[in-house]
Amino acid sequence: MPVYDAPLADMRFVLRELFAAERTPPLPGSEEYGDELVDAVLAAGAKLARSVLAPLNRSGDEAGCRFDDGQVYTPQGFRDAYARFAADGWVGLAADPEYGGQGVPQSIAVLVQEMFASANLSFSMYPGLTHGAYHAIHRWGSDAQRRMYLPRLVDGSWSGTMCLTEPHCGTDLGLIRTRAQPTPAGAHAITGSKIFISAGEHDLTRNIVHLVLARLPDAPAGIKGISMFLVPKFLPGEDGTPGARNAVSCGGIEHKMGIRASATCQLHFDGATGFLVGAPHKGMRAMFTMMNAARLTVGVQGLALAEASYQGAAAYARERLQGRAPGGAVRPEADADPILAHPDVRRMLLHMRAGIEGARALVGWAAHELDVAERHADAARRDAAQDLVSLLTPVIKACLTDMGSECTNLGVQIYGGHGYIRDNGMEQLVRDARICQIYEGTNGVQAMDLVARKLPAHGGRLLRRFFHPIADFLAAHAADESLVPFVGPLHKAFRRLQQASAYIAQRGTEDADEAGAAASEYLRLFALVAQGYLWCRAVQAAARGGAQGEAFYRAKRGTAQFYFQRVLPQSGALFAAIMGGAGAITQYRDEDF
Amino acid sequence: MPVYDAPLADMRFVLRELFAAERTPPLPGSEEYGDELVDAVLAAGAKLARSVLAPLNRSGDEAGCRFDDGQVYTPQGFRDAYARFAADGWVGLAADPEYGGQGVPQSIAVLVQEMFASANLSFSMYPGLTHGAYHAIHRWGSDAQRRMYLPRLVDGSWSGTMCLTEPHCGTDLGLIRTRAQPTPAGAHAITGSKIFISAGEHDLTRNIVHLVLARLPDAPAGIKGISMFLVPKFLPGEDGTPGARNAVSCGGIEHKMGIRASATCQLHFDGATGFLVGAPHKGMRAMFTMMNAARLTVGVQGLALAEASYQGAAAYARERLQGRAPGGAVRPEADADPILAHPDVRRMLLHMRAGIEGARALVGWAAHELDVAERHADAARRDAAQDLVSLLTPVIKACLTDMGSECTNLGVQIYGGHGYIRDNGMEQLVRDARICQIYEGTNGVQAMDLVARKLPAHGGRLLRRFFHPIADFLAAHAADESLVPFVGPLHKAFRRLQQASAYIAQRGTEDADEAGAAASEYLRLFALVAQGYLWCRAVQAAARGGAQGEAFYRAKRGTAQFYFQRVLPQSGALFAAIMGGAGAITQYRDEDF
Repeated sequence: MPVYDAPLADMRFVLRELFAAERTPPLPGSEEYGDELVDAVLAAGAKLARSVLAPLNRSGDEAGCRFDDGQVYTPQGFRDAYARFAADGWVGLAADPEYGGQGVPQSIAVLVQEMFASANLSFSMYPGLTHGAYHAIHRWGSDAQRRMYLPRLVDGSWSGTMCLTEPHCGTDLGLIRTRAQPTPAGAHAITGSKIFISAGEHDLTRNIVHLVLARLPDAPAGIKGISMFLVPKFLPGEDGTPGARNAVSCGGIEHKMGIRASATCQLHFDGATGFLVGAPHKGMRAMFTMMNAARLTVGVQGLALAEASYQGAAAYARERLQGRAPGGAVRPEADADPILAHPDVRRMLLHMRAGIEGARALVGWAAHELDVAERHADAARRDAAQDLVSLLTPVIKACLTDMGSECTNLGVQIYGGHGYIRDNGMEQLVRDARICQIYEGTNGVQAMDLVARKLPAHGGRLLRRFFHPIADFLAAHAADESLVPFVGPLHKAFRRLQQASAYIAQRGTEDADEAGAAASEYLRLFALVAQGYLWCRAVQAAARGGAQGEAFYRAKRGTAQFYFQRVLPQSGALFAAIMGGAGAITQYRDEDF
Repeated sequence: MPVYDAPLADMRFVLRELFAAERTPPLPGSEEYGDELVDAVLAAGAKLARSVLAPLNRSGDEAGCRFDDGQVYTPQGFRDAYARFAADGWVGLAADPEYGGQGVPQSIAVLVQEMFASANLSFSMYPGLTHGAYHAIHRWGSDAQRRMYLPRLVDGSWSGTMCLTEPHCGTDLGLIRTRAQPTPAGAHAITGSKIFISAGEHDLTRNIVHLVLARLPDAPAGIKGISMFLVPKFLPGEDGTPGARNAVSCGGIEHKMGIRASATCQLHFDGATGFLVGAPHKGMRAMFTMMNAARLTVGVQGLALAEASYQGAAAYARERLQGRAPGGAVRPEADADPILAHPDVRRMLLHMRAGIEGARALVGWAAHELDVAERHADAARRDAAQDLVSLLTPVIKACLTDMGSECTNLGVQIYGGHGYIRDNGMEQLVRDARICQIYEGTNGVQAMDLVARKLPAHGGRLLRRFFHPIADFLAAHAADESLVPFVGPLHKAFRRLQQASAYIAQRGTEDADEAGAAASEYLRLFALVAQGYLWCRAVQAAARGGAQGEAFYRAKRGTAQFYFQRVLPQSGALFAAIMGGAGAITQYRDEDF
């Protein structure tokens, strides 16, 4: 089993050094988060991840959740771990202090999220879902709903869910059939079936708060007729004590490729008592409050699993003796050299590092902008940050989860046959990572969100929030000798992205298929440029040096070189695919598939 | 569950139309395989795959193999299916008629192999291993060994294994510790432990013939001191009746990510009676007889699983209604359009088709050359064919198994959340496909085999066997109007491959790390060019038309267009990565990983 140790040096680098300029001065309400406090938070998170969550990861996968007569039992050890997790305040880490949260800025909270997902993705999903429900109620709930539910979600004694999917509808929520009938008491009776509900039923908390999308009797057709309802598993009394069992039941759990310790439930609502959250027919808006936060979280999950796999693979590459280095023995006293001596193994490890560190930088950027959007004193600056976060969200979700699958697979590859057997824990990371490309909107849906919504929004305003800092950076550093191997290739890739953006903006308005056919490649090109920009800045920051030690900065520059030589050139192939147009895809006849 | 139907039209196209020139006149001993007989073989294979093997695939995965007190039990239904499989003569399909085989040419046998692996990879491994053992004994065994073992392997009443790997050595077989001590009776006592032995113990056959790599007492160190021994589970009497139990025992089976119905065994040899196969210390040569055939088979497995996944995904894309086509409803009478209407879904399906059909063409080419190498009247032509097969083998193994993993993952992606749950069978294909990139030499090892062995062999002679037909084709069709969108891009990619080959040949001799650092990207570039060449020929063949129907040829050309527009451009990125040199990989310090 690979041992997981949180990558604290790179986390500190991203937090303090890479975005040093943006983070000075500190945002209002973040002043107290100096180095000492942040280090304490990160160290405590790292310790919990390593000593409590990681040891339950393999056993949780083997046992899976158990369904018995409507009850769901999490694997052995999960209840105790959750009790500790909640008692230590991790559920409400980034939550509003008014409701008992710690109010930790997003840029710090995402690092802790990453640790927990690296150590045990299945476990981390339970508080993750709670977090989504917290967000939706915090933003759209009534005062009474907030007072009743938020403190209990924040302290982890209750958990939350998002009930969207039905057997016949996943991506297309306009097809939802679950109905909400007003009751004389002013509540609603919710009737319908939901599937794929993570944490829909389990034994970790006293109560579960379902946020359910359903249709009111007078609802217009499609997504404009969806409302959101809060359906507690146990109806709380006025003092918050869970009382009568609500008419929501679990009909079974799914047997899945991975995240087997996360309960994925079929839920039946049989006239269950629900309370409208927000305005009637405005459920999609409320749902997106959960969904956007969840999409960033899922991107972080992809990163997290790649990191866990890297740690296992790097350790194995140092220990496993097999063959000789091409240039001659590096360990002549042993029977063989460590496989780290083989260039192709190093290539795979560096590919993982480049993906992981680029991803962490991208998440760090988005999380900082999220803090700005929430906390900055200047409204214009807040709006600009929100624009950038909206733009980056689908990119982070799709790119980082694709990277998560790619890198966990590379981790198995480095382990060889020993990676394919379950005992070593490497193949579990592949199975767990695979869902991240699917849930909270498949990566194809993310790509469509980017090209069809985010690009044209406000006349291209969101895209300019991204293009301007890169253009400024390139202009400022065109003649910077220390960045010679980096700025030129970035400039080339950036020009390709600009041209591809213009092509999509122009052709996509004439023919909607054009945007759709280019979407996935465009998202990948976008991500390559975004990370290329951040790698340039990482090289600068590494040259400045700091508190992470000389080897850290040397490695950072080395990984950057790998990125520019071996990863960024993909921009040419993506550009060619986009500019070739949709013809090869759209002219192919349906009956020929 | 996706229903598997063998893709007979494309199989016939590859066999008869794509390589029509090469296959005229028929090879000696292949004359009887006219269209009628071949169609009968393919139809019988397709029927068995669909009606017997495919129905056991999901249940076999769920049940897995069971180990109990030294015995291994295959999942329910496997014994009956195997009995039928053997009785119908499929084990010895391509085997020598002298020993009871059917003598079917490789170019036909690989198509049947593909069907069986598509339907049930785990099942197909049992006869697959037998096939490897058959090859080694046929080539290197004594007359007496051949007479005793081959008929029983060929009729499937006994099965075979390859016992190479030990806990501390996989790729590096020079580290093997299993010992062979000569006995007074002229046999050897084999002592040692082997792991990851597919079909090492099971309940399908009366006897199991292990081919074991071990060291004689006077063996030189390293791979030059490895000999091959035949170790039957039951020692046969003179009449071939299995007699005394030999001292080989199964210590357990592995719990794996996939191929769960294939028994992966730990075997202990405790002074087991073994018989030398071939000359002392020449075991690696004998092993490669098995290994090279096995590598082609593994490539076919990657193709096979991609095909199975495509069939499931295409059917789902037609049935699943979700959202609307970007250009407006295509099924206005329904609540939503089939997801096939979404360009990104079509893109994924076309990516799968391009990979699958290109792979099948590549296998068809190699299999035909294998037939030439075995059957052609002209020795020079036989040698040339053997050269090409040797060159293509690592490319097919690595490229097709990478494609298998990529495409089975795309199949899951098209299914969305429904692909991630086990019930639909799509995620099993991902788990099963994953081993193909690892076993019979990891794909990194294949890449090293290509650049470090095959490229420099005989002063580049093998490579010329590949370059010449492509150069000839390009010269002949430079001005061919019907091939305008294809020949130009192929020419560009081919020039890149030529330059990269020259670079590796030159730099690789100065610095062995250079070849190692370029190997994986070079193999992929090679595969892109090989398939680009075959796609050009496929477009030609499609233009000529034939017996597969108009829609087939239209689809073939459409898929070719996709390949040239969306896949082949990757050659630029691979070329850039190779030509950037090894520095980014080799200069990175060990301690910085």
